[in-house]
Amino acid sequence: MSNSIKLAILGLGTVGTGVINLINDNLDELKRRSGRDIIITEVGTRRQRDDIDSNIMQNSDLMAIAASDNVDIVIEVIGGTTLAKDVIMHAIKNGKHVVTANKALLAEHGNEIFAFAEANNVHVAYEAAVAGGIPIIKVMREALAANKIDWLAGIINGTGNFIMTEMRDKGRPFADVLSEAQELGYAEADPTFDVEGIDAAHKLALLASIAFGIPLQFDKVYCEGITGITLQDVNYAEELGYRIKHLGFAVRRDGQGNADDAGVELRVHPTLIPQDALLANVNGVKNAVLVNSHPLGQTLYCGDGAGAGATASAVMADVMDLVRVLGNTDCDDQGNSNQNNHGHHVPHLAFIPEQLSDTPILRAEQMITGYYLRVHAYDSPGVLADITRILSDAGINIDAILQKPAHKLGQVPVIILTLPVVESQMNLAIEKIEKLDTITDKVVRIRLDELA
Amino acid sequence: MSNSIKLAILGLGTVGTGVINLINDNLDELKRRSGRDIIITEVGTRRQRDDIDSNIMQNSDLMAIAASDNVDIVIEVIGGTTLAKDVIMHAIKNGKHVVTANKALLAEHGNEIFAFAEANNVHVAYEAAVAGGIPIIKVMREALAANKIDWLAGIINGTGNFIMTEMRDKGRPFADVLSEAQELGYAEADPTFDVEGIDAAHKLALLASIAFGIPLQFDKVYCEGITGITLQDVNYAEELGYRIKHLGFAVRRDGQGNADDAGVELRVHPTLIPQDALLANVNGVKNAVLVNSHPLGQTLYCGDGAGAGATASAVMADVMDLVRVLGNTDCDDQGNSNQNNHGHHVPHLAFIPEQLSDTPILRAEQMITGYYLRVHAYDSPGVLADITRILSDAGINIDAILQKPAHKLGQVPVIILTLPVVESQMNLAIEKIEKLDTITDKVVRIRLDELA
Repeated sequence: MSNSIKLAILGLGTVGTGVINLINDNLDELKRRSGRDIIITEVGTRRQRDDIDSNIMQNSDLMAIAASDNVDIVIEVIGGTTLAKDVIMHAIKNGKHVVTANKALLAEHGNEIFAFAEANNVHVAYEAAVAGGIPIIKVMREALAANKIDWLAGIINGTGNFIMTEMRDKGRPFADVLSEAQELGYAEADPTFDVEGIDAAHKLALLASIAFGIPLQFDKVYCEGITGITLQDVNYAEELGYRIKHLGFAVRRDGQGNADDAGVELRVHPTLIPQDALLANVNGVKNAVLVNSHPLGQTLYCGDGAGAGATASAVMADVMDLVRVLGNTDCDDQGNSNQNNHGHHVPHLAFIPEQLSDTPILRAEQMITGYYLRVHAYDSPGVLADITRILSDAGINIDAILQKPAHKLGQVPVIILTLPVVESQMNLAIEKIEKLDTITDKVVRIRLDELA
Repeated sequence: MSNSIKLAILGLGTVGTGVINLINDNLDELKRRSGRDIIITEVGTRRQRDDIDSNIMQNSDLMAIAASDNVDIVIEVIGGTTLAKDVIMHAIKNGKHVVTANKALLAEHGNEIFAFAEANNVHVAYEAAVAGGIPIIKVMREALAANKIDWLAGIINGTGNFIMTEMRDKGRPFADVLSEAQELGYAEADPTFDVEGIDAAHKLALLASIAFGIPLQFDKVYCEGITGITLQDVNYAEELGYRIKHLGFAVRRDGQGNADDAGVELRVHPTLIPQDALLANVNGVKNAVLVNSHPLGQTLYCGDGAGAGATASAVMADVMDLVRVLGNTDCDDQGNSNQNNHGHHVPHLAFIPEQLSDTPILRAEQMITGYYLRVHAYDSPGVLADITRILSDAGINIDAILQKPAHKLGQVPVIILTLPVVESQMNLAIEKIEKLDTITDKVVRIRLDELA
């Protein structure tokens, strides 16, 4: 076994450069902790770069790097789901361990990639794919390995959190803050992935799999973005002691006696949470994940969810784990190699592959959450009575009501907070409310969670 | 290799019982994640217990259990630093891996215990020893392994945090809250370890070692408790936008050009921190650790720092890690066993033993912190000028001043917040202030940190 660990970095954008800088800055820490020399032998880059150490081979042929004898670990940071997939599969086939930050690729093709890695006795590590520098993958796969995870709630998109934070702190409307986020480089020119919750849904799919031991099912994540959130709702929420955050939730439901309703909720949406919850005070581009598990209870993990340093930290944490595996050809009593024994590595999705369960992902109508409702009505006697009767008839319990003075002549918004209710019931109730003669507009609804 | 992992639990108090309950509750999760049967074969208990499964052997001879052929992993949860040490050393000698929650034992004898474990090719795991269920040991040893850690600040004693929280929230004095904490079982009859910061110092010694790669040096931790904190100071702090928390700090200092002042600060003390910091909003018996590292930046880890469930979660996370090691006899190309290769396990103190450094621990007078000062003076003209001149002459920068109206005839407290200053300079300045004719009392000082 050579003492050096040889890395290839595919892609020299922000993250790839961050990894190079980390290795340069922390060479001593890496060596002192691992006892090994960690060196970059090859980098994959479209055009030759002058700022790269001349000992490092530059190559635009990524497939060649993925198969190179001079590489132990392939770090994929090119992004996308086409070339990145081809290169990762090729690296696996050639017996290389892989480290990737590619949430979209894993959320959409992870089942296939992990199975191929198992078959080829290599590991695909992906700490950087979720919540950037927060070690939530390691925490959930290893540190909470003895717990039964009940639910998790996470701020897992920094752009969305920046926008929600600015709207509340500065009273600025959505479109205004989005422009600034784009100028600051927090949001892409096409912000769809961030503001519509797709990026968060990718990450949630990964978190849910390792929480519950289910295959990756990105296509079943229910997804609402933040484009419809108005300052009006942000302010009403604050007045009632809540804060609106864009959260991803993965929740295990027992169906309360009804087997058809047992399963897992996977949902991304704006959510009112109590102002004094730590999660409500995670601001700006920070990410945080709150995990509720038995018997541990609630634990929270918070930090930078993006950026060169945070992502490089996660990528290199994976490398440090792989360093312990490399050269560690397991053997049985006869010295036979036995590298794929499940006892010897953390399963890709936390649970051993044959133990992944087919727990159903619940449909939106089956999901159970509290609600914030904003109802606009003519200020006629009895309108509040009508609304509360409809909710009561649907078995929906009201937790709080706020009726503001009319801001237009004869029209008053009524804000109602409800206790948790099945979405299908809420749909019916809202349909009835909207049919009342006194109601002037569509009912605005935002989900609510006490995080209790 | 047998498929079962055989555990012995030494001690059936709160934690030992918690571990048994966890295994019963989460048997399925443990098996689905590890692919192994995890069973308790023996328990160490002074008197026979009727409530223990009859398949489990009960034995009051702990040394016999530590050497038993029927045990793979010994879980030590008896506490104390005498018998616990003997039993752990005996288990190590007999080739057993050890899991312990014993912070006092490790802080005081960890260097010896870990060296003995290395020599005997076994692991001593101790996630539960610091911050209960928060996986801070795994996070710092593994997830932050590629980072250079600059400093950490932690609420690592739940009792102390409960007391500080109640004092602030309810305006209750220290002694009053302490009594309640004792009634609730949060504090011992003799609360010294908690309220004087000794328990926190034990944990800080462990955190500092794995942060900086230095041997355990509990005896060098500077330690102030919370017994002197008054409601008056709690309220002044709040008025100035700060909150007083009892924190442990481990800080790397470069000496700013003076090699004699380079080293590590290890200190436990009440500290004013900004009200809007997440750490300031970690309340009650919760623990939290904030780590600042390069290139990751700040990450925060929060959860229950004590209790049966949280501690059992951490103990069993260690067991799940060891399950991957057990039966995993590393071999070189010739199939020779090579179990003690540093490449193959996480070093006990995060850095490989020969790489631990002798970085000095700084003396209290060398430590650099901001300060909150409460000065009582006769309300004579010029007193504020005198005080500020003394501070200015000592090179101490004032960040804020609050002068309250006299609450006793002719006597006014002046509250001063300073920027960071070397303690020896502050000592001299306070000595001079106390010699002023207009000063009526000792100057009250509490450290302050912006956590920036």
